[in-house]
Amino acid sequence: MSTADKKPTAAWIGTGVMGRWMCEHLMDAGYHTVVYNRTKSKAQPLIDKGAVFAGSPKEAAEQADIIFTIVGFTKDVREVYFSDTGILAGAKNGSIVVDMTTTNPSLAVEIFRQAEAKGISSIDAPVSGGDVGAREARLTIMSGGDKTAFDQVLPLFEVMGRNINYLGEAGAGQHTKACNQIVIAGTMVGVCESLLYGYKAGLSMEQLIETISKGAAGCWTLDNLAPRIAKHDYDPGFIVEHFIKDMGIALQEAQAMELSLPGLALAHQLYVALKAQGRGKDGTQALILALDALSNAGFSRS
Amino acid sequence: MSTADKKPTAAWIGTGVMGRWMCEHLMDAGYHTVVYNRTKSKAQPLIDKGAVFAGSPKEAAEQADIIFTIVGFTKDVREVYFSDTGILAGAKNGSIVVDMTTTNPSLAVEIFRQAEAKGISSIDAPVSGGDVGAREARLTIMSGGDKTAFDQVLPLFEVMGRNINYLGEAGAGQHTKACNQIVIAGTMVGVCESLLYGYKAGLSMEQLIETISKGAAGCWTLDNLAPRIAKHDYDPGFIVEHFIKDMGIALQEAQAMELSLPGLALAHQLYVALKAQGRGKDGTQALILALDALSNAGFSRS
Repeated sequence: MSTADKKPTAAWIGTGVMGRWMCEHLMDAGYHTVVYNRTKSKAQPLIDKGAVFAGSPKEAAEQADIIFTIVGFTKDVREVYFSDTGILAGAKNGSIVVDMTTTNPSLAVEIFRQAEAKGISSIDAPVSGGDVGAREARLTIMSGGDKTAFDQVLPLFEVMGRNINYLGEAGAGQHTKACNQIVIAGTMVGVCESLLYGYKAGLSMEQLIETISKGAAGCWTLDNLAPRIAKHDYDPGFIVEHFIKDMGIALQEAQAMELSLPGLALAHQLYVALKAQGRGKDGTQALILALDALSNAGFSRS
Repeated sequence: MSTADKKPTAAWIGTGVMGRWMCEHLMDAGYHTVVYNRTKSKAQPLIDKGAVFAGSPKEAAEQADIIFTIVGFTKDVREVYFSDTGILAGAKNGSIVVDMTTTNPSLAVEIFRQAEAKGISSIDAPVSGGDVGAREARLTIMSGGDKTAFDQVLPLFEVMGRNINYLGEAGAGQHTKACNQIVIAGTMVGVCESLLYGYKAGLSMEQLIETISKGAAGCWTLDNLAPRIAKHDYDPGFIVEHFIKDMGIALQEAQAMELSLPGLALAHQLYVALKAQGRGKDGTQALILALDALSNAGFSRS
């Protein structure tokens, strides 16, 4: 940090559907912000608001006290941190890096160690809540890594989210996000199989949802996504391709820990099939269509 | 019904962990009640309260306007309704039979048709909420069958439950219960795999549950059963053996409708393994032990 009194300067790398809003909340809260995005046009709304555009992650990092990243895939995270024009080539001694991408816990540990070697603190802080949660500043933020650095970043997290947690050493945030996605995978399979069964049995889907959502089957998916399925609405809150990525990470890490997760593996495969059916950019609730296709059950034509 | 003004006489067949309380609520509400149970001692608390004990389901049915059943397995339901000493051999023309056992929708249709041929109305009305829900009169009741008969039984359902639904023709109640159990199966697999991953990753289980339960992973299982798992508490709300039965019914009916439900099939198999490990009388949250054994993950020894 520059001084104890002055607000830290933030760098924001990755101004996509999530990052764009998260960065904007920081700017609205009065943080001076340097931004970088591979496709500059996506950062334009932030530039228009007064953000400085940097030529590379390295250049952005050079100008900042706290460097946030939220990019697409694991390989993008590696490039943004480790390449010659990456963050660790530019970040100042004493600065803090915060990766908010959902990525491998083992990569979070790697970033932590390489950062530490240069006198830089590191936090892994993936989020849940989707683009709506990002826009409305009510994300869940799951953090691991340096606790002192977490405490310093906390005021900035608080302008982006509501449910902000520190869960332990480097990787703990990513592991928690993996656990979150594992629950969602099981729930989504259960809800979609249930609704497809109900459809085949001739039940009213709306009445079915209303009836079972009040008891032990109750879940966020039944409350929020099942009514969309009943209307054949597959618009994304969270897209299939990103969920496949997240489940893949959880499966890789589980295997590395010598842990078999058959339910997660099945959900992953059903989503791979769904993507193969051209549904990669649909919302995760489209899973019912993969199950429908499996039995030629007729729901998609209803 | 005897008259429009007089309260109908109820027969209650099956006074086990659920039926005992449901019948007691009817008696407390002032309904004259005849009871039958294979093991008479389990009906004793009701007899002590003034219920008449009948020598067979037939004898109980002969004395009643509305005949409730909640017994164990599909074969028990068949015997209670169709044997020489069964309900349909004794029930009066104009009476109503209400099977609250979780059983096959196709059996509900069979009871409906055989009852109809004798001038008896039939409702299938399985419940969810477990023995606690039964004791506290806050069951969910999922009904199918004769709508006029449902309206007549509604005041009696209202002393047993809170969320009472009529879902369509004979079997619709059982189909809805199947849908309920399908969601629970998926959710339970998701939650148990998630907690086991969290355990292997070294996360605090309590903190993990607290963090992920507030967002899109939120569900009744995470709120109510996950904290028990964290404490290695496998006491039953709902026992493994009964859940295996319910999932088996849903799988049979799905197959009869030419519907493949791979997630449900996997959950069913994991529970079959759990029962093989001697856990048939434990609560359904013990599923984590089947997953633990699968990978020799060490949770059961922690």
